[in-house]
Amino acid sequence: MPLTRRDFAKLGALGLAARLAPELMAQPAERQIGYAIVGLGRIAEHFMAATRSTTNSKVTALVSGHRDKALRIAAQYGVPESSVYNYENFDSIASNKAVDAVYVALPNSMHAEYTIRAAKAGKHVLCEKPMATSVADCEQMIAACKSAGVKLMIAYRCHYEPIHLKAVSLIRSGALGQVEAIESSFGFPIDPGEWRLDKKLAGGGPLMDVGIYCLNATRYLTGEEPESFAAFSSVIDRDGRFAQVEENLTWTTKFPSGIVASCNTTYGSLLLGYFKVHGSKGSIECSPAFNYDGVRLHGEFDDAVIDETSTAKDPYQFQNEAEHFSQCIQNGLEPKTPGEEGLRDIKYIAEIYRAAGVSA
Amino acid sequence: MPLTRRDFAKLGALGLAARLAPELMAQPAERQIGYAIVGLGRIAEHFMAATRSTTNSKVTALVSGHRDKALRIAAQYGVPESSVYNYENFDSIASNKAVDAVYVALPNSMHAEYTIRAAKAGKHVLCEKPMATSVADCEQMIAACKSAGVKLMIAYRCHYEPIHLKAVSLIRSGALGQVEAIESSFGFPIDPGEWRLDKKLAGGGPLMDVGIYCLNATRYLTGEEPESFAAFSSVIDRDGRFAQVEENLTWTTKFPSGIVASCNTTYGSLLLGYFKVHGSKGSIECSPAFNYDGVRLHGEFDDAVIDETSTAKDPYQFQNEAEHFSQCIQNGLEPKTPGEEGLRDIKYIAEIYRAAGVSA
Repeated sequence: MPLTRRDFAKLGALGLAARLAPELMAQPAERQIGYAIVGLGRIAEHFMAATRSTTNSKVTALVSGHRDKALRIAAQYGVPESSVYNYENFDSIASNKAVDAVYVALPNSMHAEYTIRAAKAGKHVLCEKPMATSVADCEQMIAACKSAGVKLMIAYRCHYEPIHLKAVSLIRSGALGQVEAIESSFGFPIDPGEWRLDKKLAGGGPLMDVGIYCLNATRYLTGEEPESFAAFSSVIDRDGRFAQVEENLTWTTKFPSGIVASCNTTYGSLLLGYFKVHGSKGSIECSPAFNYDGVRLHGEFDDAVIDETSTAKDPYQFQNEAEHFSQCIQNGLEPKTPGEEGLRDIKYIAEIYRAAGVSA
Repeated sequence: MPLTRRDFAKLGALGLAARLAPELMAQPAERQIGYAIVGLGRIAEHFMAATRSTTNSKVTALVSGHRDKALRIAAQYGVPESSVYNYENFDSIASNKAVDAVYVALPNSMHAEYTIRAAKAGKHVLCEKPMATSVADCEQMIAACKSAGVKLMIAYRCHYEPIHLKAVSLIRSGALGQVEAIESSFGFPIDPGEWRLDKKLAGGGPLMDVGIYCLNATRYLTGEEPESFAAFSSVIDRDGRFAQVEENLTWTTKFPSGIVASCNTTYGSLLLGYFKVHGSKGSIECSPAFNYDGVRLHGEFDDAVIDETSTAKDPYQFQNEAEHFSQCIQNGLEPKTPGEEGLRDIKYIAEIYRAAGVSA
């Protein structure tokens, strides 16, 4: 029977603590979940740094096509050279006991392959959003993880962000009365040459990349699934950046309760991500909503005003995400944002593109 | 030959001013334009109060179904009892030399009838927005004013609001680079029993009443005419308020240049009207945008930040509007917001309702 700190305090009171102390200390802390990081780009850097602030997660392997870069990072995180993989020998990770889970941070179109290969290697999978570039890929990822008996979580960091959770909880508590309308937008001016502009890798333009935050927000804010979409897309800048994907996309949604939402996403402008929720008794605005830190929530209700800015610093959102997935693995729980959640957004994104007349 | 102040100063220098002074004083100041106010509701109160701050406009007649109320207001504005009309004897206003123009501030569906009757009486017409409840009515209003040789202006107060004009001028100057996306929303929780909920009088719900500000803003901000619309409408509150008109309406627009816009309007929530314009080099946000005062513009560009709040007090927007129309009448100029501008919005509103599946 493991001893808790409370038990230990009691024993102390009985003068027994000193005798039992060595045994107590020897009890292992809950084992940390070891992550193999697949793809060592910007977002992976946030995630790896975040694991250092967790008590239950650590980086134990790296997977990259750039061995030099991988070895440099391996040194920083105490990852042995034997745990640095490339895309060819990735499957041999199956025998690496230090790896419990794989964090997939590759370009969108590669999520499916590496999720499925990780599942076949018996590893749990935390996969970045968007889950994949097609509904079929999402379904195969879910099936592969199910059949391998491993967990699959999509890295929707806002589901683990306290200000977003507060917004949801305010809405559910009725503080806003009946929600009527939502607005949410997010965009940034993209640099030429980014893989995000390559349709084969990205699967789409700003909707896949940042508009998905707005789409997902309208769903968790309402707690409903969209009934239908209407949309337009456009390309303005004829500088070659947008030969394959849309530059701007605007869409509206109707939810079963009658709540309506209007959203914009763009690769042509710095559009600080935000959402606004308008209810019969009050409104909230979260702006910036989707930044890595500094998230601010302002609300005005019948009887109160709230104004709260997150003081937590990047990469706290990745920390929360890692901690949650590790806890799910440790305790056999289902993640709050499983593959099915990612699949839903990919289905809706396909519907939005269809409504905008964008071919798949 | 009329003498100017400058001439008078010269004469004074020559010692002749004293002898000529009585003649000079007798020269009439530019004649004020006399307005008959048709409908004495809330918005008419703003307009009437505003005329007092102008040098070129005054209230010279009232038209109302409530004679007691009309006589009370007549006393406030020095309008003789003989210039207080009702809806039956309104046409006899033709012979009232003190009336140059009519300000139509009736429920939407009555705009056409009173604009046309005013035109037939030989009076210029300043008509509140929305211009009318159908395209056919708008066309008849334009034709009636043209055939009577009178001017027709639609009271789009934001076209005469300096902060809005500054936003337009910033955009045209290229400060934002290429505009990519716009968001604009406006709404309020409507009280039961308002004529605005009666489809026969209002012609529609919040889109006709306040959404029109967003629609119109997307047009003057871009300087373009919308190419197409997609929309959803809904009714949530089943308390009988929305038996005839929509409660919520969300729409998206695409402009010929590729600029996209997303908009919301509602009668179910206090949705402080705003617009945001996102360009390749910067963004502006105007919020509140459509209030009677306190209009605020915030902008962030490559090389500058602007933050400006209007210090002018209500009813300055109505004052600017009245002054503009009176100047047009005095100088034979075309108003900045003629009937054709109102007609365009009514055409677009019909398209939005069609896209939302709302029957006319």
